[in-house]
Amino acid sequence: MLTNAEMRERDLAHIWHPCSQMKDYETLPFIPIKSGKGAYLFDFDGNRYLDAISSWWVNLFGHANPYINEKVKEQLDTLEHVIFAGFSHEPAIRLAERLVALTPEKLTRLFFADNGSSAIEIALKMSFQYYKNRGEVRDVFISLENSYHGETMGALAVGDVALYKEIYSEILIRTVQAKSPALVAEDEALASMEALFQKYEGRISAVVIEPLVQCAGSMAMYGPEYIRNLRELCDAYGIFLIADEIAVGFGRTGTMFACEQADIVPDFLCLSKGITGGYLPLSVVMTSDEVYSAFYCDYSEGKSFLDSHSYTGNALACMAANATLDIFENEHILDSNRVKIDILSALLQRFEDLPNVLEVRQRGFIAAVELKGYDPSERIGLQIYRYALSHGVLLRPLGHVVYFMPPYVVTEEELVKMTDVAYEAIKSLL
Amino acid sequence: MLTNAEMRERDLAHIWHPCSQMKDYETLPFIPIKSGKGAYLFDFDGNRYLDAISSWWVNLFGHANPYINEKVKEQLDTLEHVIFAGFSHEPAIRLAERLVALTPEKLTRLFFADNGSSAIEIALKMSFQYYKNRGEVRDVFISLENSYHGETMGALAVGDVALYKEIYSEILIRTVQAKSPALVAEDEALASMEALFQKYEGRISAVVIEPLVQCAGSMAMYGPEYIRNLRELCDAYGIFLIADEIAVGFGRTGTMFACEQADIVPDFLCLSKGITGGYLPLSVVMTSDEVYSAFYCDYSEGKSFLDSHSYTGNALACMAANATLDIFENEHILDSNRVKIDILSALLQRFEDLPNVLEVRQRGFIAAVELKGYDPSERIGLQIYRYALSHGVLLRPLGHVVYFMPPYVVTEEELVKMTDVAYEAIKSLL
Repeated sequence: MLTNAEMRERDLAHIWHPCSQMKDYETLPFIPIKSGKGAYLFDFDGNRYLDAISSWWVNLFGHANPYINEKVKEQLDTLEHVIFAGFSHEPAIRLAERLVALTPEKLTRLFFADNGSSAIEIALKMSFQYYKNRGEVRDVFISLENSYHGETMGALAVGDVALYKEIYSEILIRTVQAKSPALVAEDEALASMEALFQKYEGRISAVVIEPLVQCAGSMAMYGPEYIRNLRELCDAYGIFLIADEIAVGFGRTGTMFACEQADIVPDFLCLSKGITGGYLPLSVVMTSDEVYSAFYCDYSEGKSFLDSHSYTGNALACMAANATLDIFENEHILDSNRVKIDILSALLQRFEDLPNVLEVRQRGFIAAVELKGYDPSERIGLQIYRYALSHGVLLRPLGHVVYFMPPYVVTEEELVKMTDVAYEAIKSLL
Repeated sequence: MLTNAEMRERDLAHIWHPCSQMKDYETLPFIPIKSGKGAYLFDFDGNRYLDAISSWWVNLFGHANPYINEKVKEQLDTLEHVIFAGFSHEPAIRLAERLVALTPEKLTRLFFADNGSSAIEIALKMSFQYYKNRGEVRDVFISLENSYHGETMGALAVGDVALYKEIYSEILIRTVQAKSPALVAEDEALASMEALFQKYEGRISAVVIEPLVQCAGSMAMYGPEYIRNLRELCDAYGIFLIADEIAVGFGRTGTMFACEQADIVPDFLCLSKGITGGYLPLSVVMTSDEVYSAFYCDYSEGKSFLDSHSYTGNALACMAANATLDIFENEHILDSNRVKIDILSALLQRFEDLPNVLEVRQRGFIAAVELKGYDPSERIGLQIYRYALSHGVLLRPLGHVVYFMPPYVVTEEELVKMTDVAYEAIKSLL
């Protein structure tokens, strides 16, 4: 029988884990997972953990979901993958049709990639090349302060979380950041954006935002009003708006897509993470016929969009995505989520009374409890992480912000368990 | 019953395909694939196509391979995915151990990502940060002329295929290119590299190469001697060597990894494509304890490597990779490939006699026939593509270079069919 200790030792002999200081694992819990079922992960020693962060915001319908499993198995027996240039397959075609039907009328075109960072890179490249194809060089991209858009150099350059970006400053392209409506008043944020539009007039390809929630930026939240105003501003100046819904898409904010709450249509919509229900890496960039047309011409004109990844349009991932959409439809998930979101709201109330809590905020199935009075060097997030794991819950605070983003299959009982453990963890700091 | 015509229409209504001028599909064959089996793809009208390019160089053991299917199904029932920071699972641990065992002793550490571009970005960021962590800013990366390393902005910046890169020049970081040993004499290429080492002394983080074959660069080939000399040069100047074996790894050049033929150890080894047997997006960057140690310290020192993708270390993809390595071992693939590689060599000989053939070249299971006397505007590659498809073979020439990179399950009969069709296609141009 394999044990946690044995697996841990074998792992740490060779694997360099993402987003980690490996030395931390000398003292931090490091958990080899043997299996998953529903909202739970099970380790090799027989412990179980409630996955309150959906394994980095990807899982929607539980681990080893029987329905998604069945569909992916069918696809394995049919076609695992085929080159996606000049070729296609049914799961991709069906997925494209369904995503086009689920998003605003204007978003008719869909480009595939493998991960969120690559989707952002594609949206940046497409928006830049759109203008280049018309003879304009627009070399400036604008994003928001406190934003996060991924890890590859283009995606990193439009992000603004110093922790991830600062060390690479000499090898990133320059981008500019407007004030975030999640951190300052929305009017002030909008004025800061317009000032940049004026300063760089004629040089800006696109603005990229995470609608409603800047997830990696401490789950900072802002309202739909800002997005509506930003859309108008982009229209007035003729600048593309890229909506990075990689983390917030697929029901996370209560609606299928966050932009719906602002009732606007972005020029580029980037989706990933929950798209496959947490099963497989897949991402898409959706855009309009107008953008598509600017690249559609005789090959000799040199205006083609030649981006590609080997596994673009992977059939297994597309099938997992279709199965995920089946569950949304068949089980009326957005409706049933509403009930759970209200339960979560109610459970969050008592956190407000804790003396070390600065703010409790929630947008749909994303909730955050921000603590106050701690120095970053105390790393209280790790203390909470450790406490929660020892009580059977996987939380992964962002610094002094404890958040909840559970799979949608979570039960009321599990929501109680998850918030109870977080509450006790925060109280234990006092 | 679904038909090609119907699927084609549904597809082209919404999907923007990779590496394509979409207008070409008005006249070019566009093939919706219903299923795959072994070396063949089957469309909705009942036609079959021999996949002579392994669906963009990824497939090794055939489509819908029964053994890989079985293993991935097992994994579906166990654990599809778990966050890979602070957590792990058996398929990743086993894969790491096996890759460490298959590569030179010095490559002991392994970092996961989802696609080839992301692996290149990680190698670039790691090499840059290695020096930054020691207080040095080394902002120059060197690559070879005619090289290709991917599509995200960092990967694109070290590439040198104008077709993919030129249009984005204003938004890419500057990199420098040395002459390619595949295009000039190896001595001249090496001298050009050393001149850059001197010009940018103290500023270079790393050199990145595709060992032995510049695949996207028209399958240009060069010998192991250059790699040996480059390794010595990098050592003399204290510069990292990144081996991009995304396309050439996993047996493509005859040995498990191309660097083995030069008997050298790169500082970073990037792997993807064939790693999962052509099933799922997965990539890894392997490096040494020395590099790992430069990031290993107290968190407060700010030297951690914080890169991550949501699906880093995906369990399903790791399981497909383990199944792929099982087949390599159980069926002694490198040995059986040797026989097939010799058959392919023999079949290539008659191409030399065609008056429109400039050169025939081969490195293991990669073979290319370069044509002469045609202007790029004639797009003869497309003519060959069309001819081959109508004769049941999927070839995808790179301009005027027709190449073969079949799955390893290809039979002698299929090698004959594949080369026969290519021969007739090339002859038909006369």
